[in-house]
Amino acid sequence: MKHKKLKTLGLLIAVAVLSTVVTRAQDPLPSWNEGTTKQIIIEFVKATTDQSSPKFVPSEERIATFDQDGTLWVEHPMYTQVTYCLERVPALVEKKPELKNREPFKTVLSGNREAIAKLSQDDLMKILAATLTGMSVDDFNAEAKKWIAEAKDPRWKRPYTELTYQPMKEVMEYLRANGYKTYIVTGGGQDFVRVYAEQTYGIPPEQVVGTAGGTKYGYDKAGKPFLTKEPKLLLNDNNAGKPEGIHLMIGRRPSVAFGNSTGDRQMLEYTKAGDGARLAMLVLHDDAEREYAYGPAQGLPDTKVGTFTQALYDEAKKNGWTVISMKNDWKVIFPFENK
Amino acid sequence: MKHKKLKTLGLLIAVAVLSTVVTRAQDPLPSWNEGTTKQIIIEFVKATTDQSSPKFVPSEERIATFDQDGTLWVEHPMYTQVTYCLERVPALVEKKPELKNREPFKTVLSGNREAIAKLSQDDLMKILAATLTGMSVDDFNAEAKKWIAEAKDPRWKRPYTELTYQPMKEVMEYLRANGYKTYIVTGGGQDFVRVYAEQTYGIPPEQVVGTAGGTKYGYDKAGKPFLTKEPKLLLNDNNAGKPEGIHLMIGRRPSVAFGNSTGDRQMLEYTKAGDGARLAMLVLHDDAEREYAYGPAQGLPDTKVGTFTQALYDEAKKNGWTVISMKNDWKVIFPFENK
Repeated sequence: MKHKKLKTLGLLIAVAVLSTVVTRAQDPLPSWNEGTTKQIIIEFVKATTDQSSPKFVPSEERIATFDQDGTLWVEHPMYTQVTYCLERVPALVEKKPELKNREPFKTVLSGNREAIAKLSQDDLMKILAATLTGMSVDDFNAEAKKWIAEAKDPRWKRPYTELTYQPMKEVMEYLRANGYKTYIVTGGGQDFVRVYAEQTYGIPPEQVVGTAGGTKYGYDKAGKPFLTKEPKLLLNDNNAGKPEGIHLMIGRRPSVAFGNSTGDRQMLEYTKAGDGARLAMLVLHDDAEREYAYGPAQGLPDTKVGTFTQALYDEAKKNGWTVISMKNDWKVIFPFENK
Repeated sequence: MKHKKLKTLGLLIAVAVLSTVVTRAQDPLPSWNEGTTKQIIIEFVKATTDQSSPKFVPSEERIATFDQDGTLWVEHPMYTQVTYCLERVPALVEKKPELKNREPFKTVLSGNREAIAKLSQDDLMKILAATLTGMSVDDFNAEAKKWIAEAKDPRWKRPYTELTYQPMKEVMEYLRANGYKTYIVTGGGQDFVRVYAEQTYGIPPEQVVGTAGGTKYGYDKAGKPFLTKEPKLLLNDNNAGKPEGIHLMIGRRPSVAFGNSTGDRQMLEYTKAGDGARLAMLVLHDDAEREYAYGPAQGLPDTKVGTFTQALYDEAKKNGWTVISMKNDWKVIFPFENK
C-alpha cells in the first residue's frame, strides 16, 4: 500500500512537472506576467486566426505595426539615432573643416554635455541633416552598421540592440507565427532603423516605415550608378505622419498597433477605426528600477522623450486601447535577463 | 511474339505519354517557347537558389521588380490609368460644375477623340490631379475598383485585368515558388495599381511601388479618422525615380528587374550594378498581330507610349540585359488563349 502510494505520488509529480513543461512550451508570451494584458493579446490572436470566429481576419490582411523607440527598445535618456548623429560630428568636421567653428557643430565638438542637452530642435535638425545626408546609401549603411555594432548604452554598458524589450519580441514572434506581417513604424530614420531591424527584430528593410528623405540617382566616374541621400524630407513619420506613412508604404490599415507616446496616437486611432477586430496597445514606462519611469499620465516626470500625456491616457481608456504597465505586466524587460 | 511486341509498343507509348505529361508539369514556363530567353530565366533561378552555386542569393535578398504597363499588361493605345482618369471627368464635373467650361475638362467632355489625343502633358497632369486626388483613400479605392471590374479594352472587349501577359505571370509565379518576393515598380499611380494587383498578379498592396502622392490625416464629423489623397507628388516613379522609389519602399537592391521602355532604364542599371548574380530583361513589343509592334529599336513606330529607343537597345546589349521578343519568345500572349 505504502509502495503504491509513493508510486502514485511519483506519477502525480511527473504529470505536474510535465504539464508545467508543456504549458511553458505552449506559452507564446513567457516573459509576460499572467493577467488581463497578456490575455487580451492571446485572445485577439486566437480570435482573428480562427476561421469560425466572427473576428477572423484573412491572412493577407494581418498587418501589425510597432513604434520602435520606447516601444521595442529603450529611448532614454536620448534617442539612439540622435546619439549616433552627435557622435558622427567629429568625422563630419574632418571632411568639412569649415563646420568646425560653426554652430551647432562647435557646441557638439566641445563635448560640454549640458550645452549639448540644451541645443534647440532647429540645431538638432541641422546636425541630423548634416550627418544623415550627403553620402551614398551604401556608405551610410556601412557607417551606421559599424556604429551600431560598437556603440554602447551608458547605463547598461551594452550594445543598443540588446536593450530591446523581450516581451515585445515575443509578441512580434507570436504574431508572425500566426500569419501576421510585422512592421516597424517609427519616427526615427527609415534608413537608420533598417540597418539593424532584420538582425534585431527579424523585420526586413522592406517592413520598416520611418522618417524618410529623398535620394538622388547618379553615376560615379566609372559609370556605376548609385543613390545619394538628399536633405529633402519625404515623410515625417510622427503623429499624423504615421498613418500617412502606413498608407504610402503598406497601403492597408493595420489590424494591430503598438506605441508608447503621443507620436503614436494617430496610428492607434487609425488602426482602431477599421472594421472588425483591432488591437491597440500603449507601453507605459512605469518601472524606474528596471528601466525608466516617465509620463505625466501617472504623475511621472515629462522627459520630453516619448511623452505619455494624460490626454493620451484618457483617449486610450475611451477608445479601448490597452495600456501595458512595464512594471506589472512584464516578467523580464531585456533578453539578457533570461541568460 | 506478336502479342508481346504489341505489349512492348503499348508500354513505350505509355512511357512516352507519361514523360510528356511529367515534363509539362515540371516546366515552370509553359507559355514560353524553348530558346535562349527561357533558358536564361530558368538557369538564373536554379543558380541563385542552389546553395552550392557561387551565384546563390540568400532568400531574404531575393527581390524581383516588374514594371507594369507594357511589361505585365497591354499599354496601348493609352495607359489604362489615363483612360480611367478621362472617364472619371463627367462624375468630377457633376460634383464641381465650375469645371464644365474650363479646359482641359471641356475638351474631355466634348468626346472629340482627336482633340483628346492632342491634349498636352500639362493638361493630362491637370486631369490626373483632379480625378486622383481630393477624395478619401477609401472612396478612391471603391471608385477605382468598380471601374476596373466594369471597363473594357476597346480592341479585345475584355476587362483590362485579362490583358495581362501569361508568360510574365508564369515568371512571377516561378520566382515566388523559389523564394523571390515579387514587386511591381510602376510609373502608374501606386494607389490605382494596388486596387487590382493582388487579384490580378498575386502581388499585395505593400509590394506595389508606384508614382505616389501625399495623403492628409483628418477626422470626419463623427470623429472617425480618415486619409485624404492630396495633390502633392511624393514620388515620380519613372526613370531615376524607379531606383529611388525602390530604395524608399523596399530598401534593398533587386536581384531581378523586368521592364519594357526607357522609363525602366535606371531600374535595370541599378539592379545590374549590384554584386553577384543579377537578371535584367526588357520586353520588346514586336508582335503587331497578337498584340502591338512599336519601338524605334526595331525600326518600329515610336508611339510615345512605352518608348523602346535604339539607345536603350544598345545599352541592353552592352550591359547584358536580355531582350524578350514577344513574337518569338512567347507561345501565348494572354491567359485567355489557354482556355
